Amino acid sequence: MKTWKTLSRKTILDHSRYLTVEDHTIELPDGRQLSNWCWIITYDYVNVLARTAEGKFICFRQTKYGVEGESLAPVGGHIEAGEDPLEAAKRELREETGYHAHSWTSLGHYRVDANHGCGMAHLFLAEGAEKFGERFLDDLEEQELLLLDRQELQATLAAGEFKVLSWAMTVAMALIATES
Amino acid sequence: MKTWKTLSRKTILDHSRYLTVEDHTIELPDGRQLSNWCWIITYDYVNVLARTAEGKFICFRQTKYGVEGESLAPVGGHIEAGEDPLEAAKRELREETGYHAHSWTSLGHYRVDANHGCGMAHLFLAEGAEKFGERFLDDLEEQELLLLDRQELQATLAAGEFKVLSWAMTVAMALIATES
Repeated sequence: MKTWKTLSRKTILDHSRYLTVEDHTIELPDGRQLSNWCWIITYDYVNVLARTAEGKFICFRQTKYGVEGESLAPVGGHIEAGEDPLEAAKRELREETGYHAHSWTSLGHYRVDANHGCGMAHLFLAEGAEKFGERFLDDLEEQELLLLDRQELQATLAAGEFKVLSWAMTVAMALIATES
Repeated sequence: MKTWKTLSRKTILDHSRYLTVEDHTIELPDGRQLSNWCWIITYDYVNVLARTAEGKFICFRQTKYGVEGESLAPVGGHIEAGEDPLEAAKRELREETGYHAHSWTSLGHYRVDANHGCGMAHLFLAEGAEKFGERFLDDLEEQELLLLDRQELQATLAAGEFKVLSWAMTVAMALIATES
């Protein structure tokens, strides 16, 4: 199967470290060319669903600018420049919860927008999580830490309480990966 | 729990019907104000995993500009202006596969980016799908239609063959919703 090609690119918006927009001229698999194709460069990020040795899943209840009302969420954050996704996942778990974990499983990495980019999401399951220090909260965040059992996790996912695509995806993949 | 507020907004990039970028001044839950917050307006979209009366899941093998190599994918597309998400889902199933389905279940709707927008994803499971007409292919697309059984679907999801976040999420949620 033939692939798509980039013929040329120029930056049309350099907003901040969170957003650059490019305009691409591309070649379709059938050889035709399209101009004015937007390419959105945001950031790559991790989400981590951690489970304690007692079998509880570590989640937050929190608010976000892009989300209506409160949402449940797993651990998550941006991958820093040059940082390995797994290292970012371990750092975010440590900073946001004060836990570390003995066993790490990739739940995959995914393009956020199939056509226009928007970064990559790297998702992880962390098992055998233990508290070892204090939480270090990002100053923009208000997060309530919750420990949910497997039934509660399934029920809240089905009820739409994880309101962000990558958050719900992390939970769904963790449920599939841990079913026995 | 307090929420975030929009204090003012202005358009800083009006690229196409696929992308508008705004710059917002916002108020954090703790009352502080932040300016220069980017808000990315793309499009709302649907993904549909359809299962035939014989228990096969309808997928595509395809290439996309934002995806490296080939990917498996469920049915999907943009919601048109004023269109109900479920109607968009039924239309996309009909256009992309030539199937219709007797039973529709919402797998949830999700904000794509918790902080900066990027549209909403509306995900569906369609059961009892039957062929009734011809496929109507978008002229940019090259899609091979596949019928996967449940084990193949689980194995390809776990192997990372669904490379886009909303595509893999639709499959994961459909697997959870149909396990018995």
